[in-house]
Amino acid sequence: MMMSSKRYISKLLLSLILIFLLSIPITAIPSRSPSRFLGNFAKHHKTTDTINKTYRYDIRYFTQTLDHFSFSNLPTFQQRYLISTDHWLSGGGGGLNRFGPIFVYCGNEGDIEWFASNTGFLWEIASTFGALIVFPEHRYYGESMPYGSREKAYKNANSLSYLTAEQALADYAVFITDLKRNLSAEASPVVLFGGSYGGMLAAWMRLKYPHIAIGALASSAPILQFEDIVPTETFYDIVSNDFRRESLSCFDAIKKSWEEIEVEGKKENGLLQLTKKFHLCQSLNSTEDLSDWLDSAYSYLAMVDYPYPSSFLMPLPANPIKEVCRKIDSYPEGTSILERVFAGVSIYYNYTGTVDCFDLADDPHGMSGWDWQACTEMVMPMSSSRNNSMFPTYNFNYTSYQEQCVKEFGIKPRPRWITTEFGGHDMRTSLKMFGSNIIFSNGLLDPWSGGGVLQNLSETIVALVSKEGIVPLSLTA
Amino acid sequence: MMMSSKRYISKLLLSLILIFLLSIPITAIPSRSPSRFLGNFAKHHKTTDTINKTYRYDIRYFTQTLDHFSFSNLPTFQQRYLISTDHWLSGGGGGLNRFGPIFVYCGNEGDIEWFASNTGFLWEIASTFGALIVFPEHRYYGESMPYGSREKAYKNANSLSYLTAEQALADYAVFITDLKRNLSAEASPVVLFGGSYGGMLAAWMRLKYPHIAIGALASSAPILQFEDIVPTETFYDIVSNDFRRESLSCFDAIKKSWEEIEVEGKKENGLLQLTKKFHLCQSLNSTEDLSDWLDSAYSYLAMVDYPYPSSFLMPLPANPIKEVCRKIDSYPEGTSILERVFAGVSIYYNYTGTVDCFDLADDPHGMSGWDWQACTEMVMPMSSSRNNSMFPTYNFNYTSYQEQCVKEFGIKPRPRWITTEFGGHDMRTSLKMFGSNIIFSNGLLDPWSGGGVLQNLSETIVALVSKEGIVPLSLTA
Repeated sequence: MMMSSKRYISKLLLSLILIFLLSIPITAIPSRSPSRFLGNFAKHHKTTDTINKTYRYDIRYFTQTLDHFSFSNLPTFQQRYLISTDHWLSGGGGGLNRFGPIFVYCGNEGDIEWFASNTGFLWEIASTFGALIVFPEHRYYGESMPYGSREKAYKNANSLSYLTAEQALADYAVFITDLKRNLSAEASPVVLFGGSYGGMLAAWMRLKYPHIAIGALASSAPILQFEDIVPTETFYDIVSNDFRRESLSCFDAIKKSWEEIEVEGKKENGLLQLTKKFHLCQSLNSTEDLSDWLDSAYSYLAMVDYPYPSSFLMPLPANPIKEVCRKIDSYPEGTSILERVFAGVSIYYNYTGTVDCFDLADDPHGMSGWDWQACTEMVMPMSSSRNNSMFPTYNFNYTSYQEQCVKEFGIKPRPRWITTEFGGHDMRTSLKMFGSNIIFSNGLLDPWSGGGVLQNLSETIVALVSKEGIVPLSLTA
Repeated sequence: MMMSSKRYISKLLLSLILIFLLSIPITAIPSRSPSRFLGNFAKHHKTTDTINKTYRYDIRYFTQTLDHFSFSNLPTFQQRYLISTDHWLSGGGGGLNRFGPIFVYCGNEGDIEWFASNTGFLWEIASTFGALIVFPEHRYYGESMPYGSREKAYKNANSLSYLTAEQALADYAVFITDLKRNLSAEASPVVLFGGSYGGMLAAWMRLKYPHIAIGALASSAPILQFEDIVPTETFYDIVSNDFRRESLSCFDAIKKSWEEIEVEGKKENGLLQLTKKFHLCQSLNSTEDLSDWLDSAYSYLAMVDYPYPSSFLMPLPANPIKEVCRKIDSYPEGTSILERVFAGVSIYYNYTGTVDCFDLADDPHGMSGWDWQACTEMVMPMSSSRNNSMFPTYNFNYTSYQEQCVKEFGIKPRPRWITTEFGGHDMRTSLKMFGSNIIFSNGLLDPWSGGGVLQNLSETIVALVSKEGIVPLSLTA
């Protein structure tokens, strides 16, 4: 019977992928994560330089509907996707009747080629499963720009308004349906993959479009990081803990540095002194800009604290947090805290030693896609606790969050929409009752794991948790 | 444990509702149905006259988001809803802690008060279940008009663009979530009810928002009437069969009448003769207008062929199809076929005998909400077969369907979108694998039953089929 065979295939596929995942030495697997910081990806990552063209794929374009849920007369746009049929199992005779699975990577907030080159896992397992691989790009990122260009797409709140997770999911649904039809691959089961925001999309897609994909591997996907489902302090607590476990004195130095910056900034010529101390290209306007810059470095370091050299965000040594703390701790007693933290973050911002001065904002006028998403539906509240966090104490304040969004985009967020659309406080119950075939993988050192699903919820909603380390999807650095 | 108790409650509730349904003499239960005809509801039904105020409820308004899936700066609108707390079970002490279920009727394409007064079933069972009753109105119908008025909402394709099923479902999701919060009724399970298009919404909501409602009763909901999932002839075949089972000669007379109309129309002054014969107020421009008018009457008659007098669409006697055929068959041999069918449809259009002349199009300039929906996503192909149908032979032609929509609204339909969004050719498999707690009720005499779910698909996806008759939700006529 069709039903049981479909069910069997889906179970089998997910089980095999699970076995594969469990066989990987987990400390060796890095991840990516969404955040309010990801708006700064452009600053941290120079697309064209770092794309590793190890994997072979074709680049194609799909004519996509701009607004799936309304019928205004809007222009279509070209959604880019990468495709590799190298390993795809055919039905014998090499004809059109393929039956190997289709592995779909849910593109997230960046250039899809960059994600493809950093998602070794998919490429590694494709031959084992005889799978077709496709990487559809997320709308409004990379080359997949509505209105023909990034400039036009990012022009204002109106042109940006179709940049939402629901529209992206619908893109994938329409794209996959069309792809299967065109390839006469209706019988091929689809398995979704995604990391961080892409992992959220993979999991949500499995809930909203179960008829389109039989399973999903959602890696470090903080689907619970909304409203007050998890404590708002988890993110910064985990980052802080990642530093404390390396060195308590390193943690303490960073924790003290914020106050030092404030004190210094209030002195006569203090901002100028800070500008010099931190080798900034432009004169500092406020101590906050500097603090944000440091905050970002620590947070990103926690997300890419791989045990081998990597260049996903920045060129970094193996175990970069250990290196940062080693640097901070290496100074003789009496060295100023600011000198020490500057040396520390230089590991992140200037590991190659080629930077003469630091630019706090590479493109202060450029709007960021993730900032837009964070100001509309992806409201993921974050606080910094007084005791466990090495960051300045901060209580998430929705009112000021909203003010900031109105100021930047002229738009008010809908902080409760995501939980209404995809499930909220009862998310675990919903997943258990209505979901199936999702693997949630998390490494507890990853700051996003605090908003992740860390327990098995049913036979087919499985949590893979690594206590030490940061989980998938990029096998190769 | 929370999980199992939730599951238990949902199973129990649905089972009880099922038992209730089975205990109702099904021939006595009328239904409503969506169709390309429903665009004409305004013509057939005068809202204010026929609203039966038997049931007690409050009328309230909810500030609703116009576009849930995008973030343009759009005005909100007031969604009307009817609410009755008369039977709602409180947690003892009469305090705010209610635990009785919440019965939500998914408003469909019309005035919500009209549906409320014709959905006796909900009102009848509310006290048994200690349920709160709410009837949220569907956007763009009744009083729930975006942009402040029907005129502005229906101005053009742009203002109409947010009239979609997905937006309506999101309305209900946001509304229910907010209502439960405001009533401190988070613990109250929500059960959805809906007939015809509203039944489709109830079933789809259960698939897309399972975390919001634990179960749905979808009455005569043709969720399979898309693309070529079911034969496109089913609708007209069933209507035709409803007439044939009353009288073969009646069926034959109607089947022959179309050709007679064509022949008559081609004669000199033929259109004028037809205008006189059918007592039309305005001179006929084409035979097609007349045929459409007759076609509508027969189709609607099949949808409201109740065994008791009713006035849901028009004031009608009990078993109106039997009456129509009795009339048609009552003429002596030799009477012209056109005279006979005119007498027949007069049962539908003029049962009260108060109409002097018939207006084929009450408001030729008014745009209809359902026509818009049919021209965007609700593309439900229909053909009329040569042999089984009493209607003129017609093969559904998507090209001309699309042309008509471009002409009327300047918009091209997306005929494959609904199946992509909610599931298509594998719908039964999807329902079985991923759905739960849905009762599909259908009467096989209802022309929409051809696109309905007529078999039990699992323990919790249940089909209630009545061979004779037309199933729920309005117990009282």
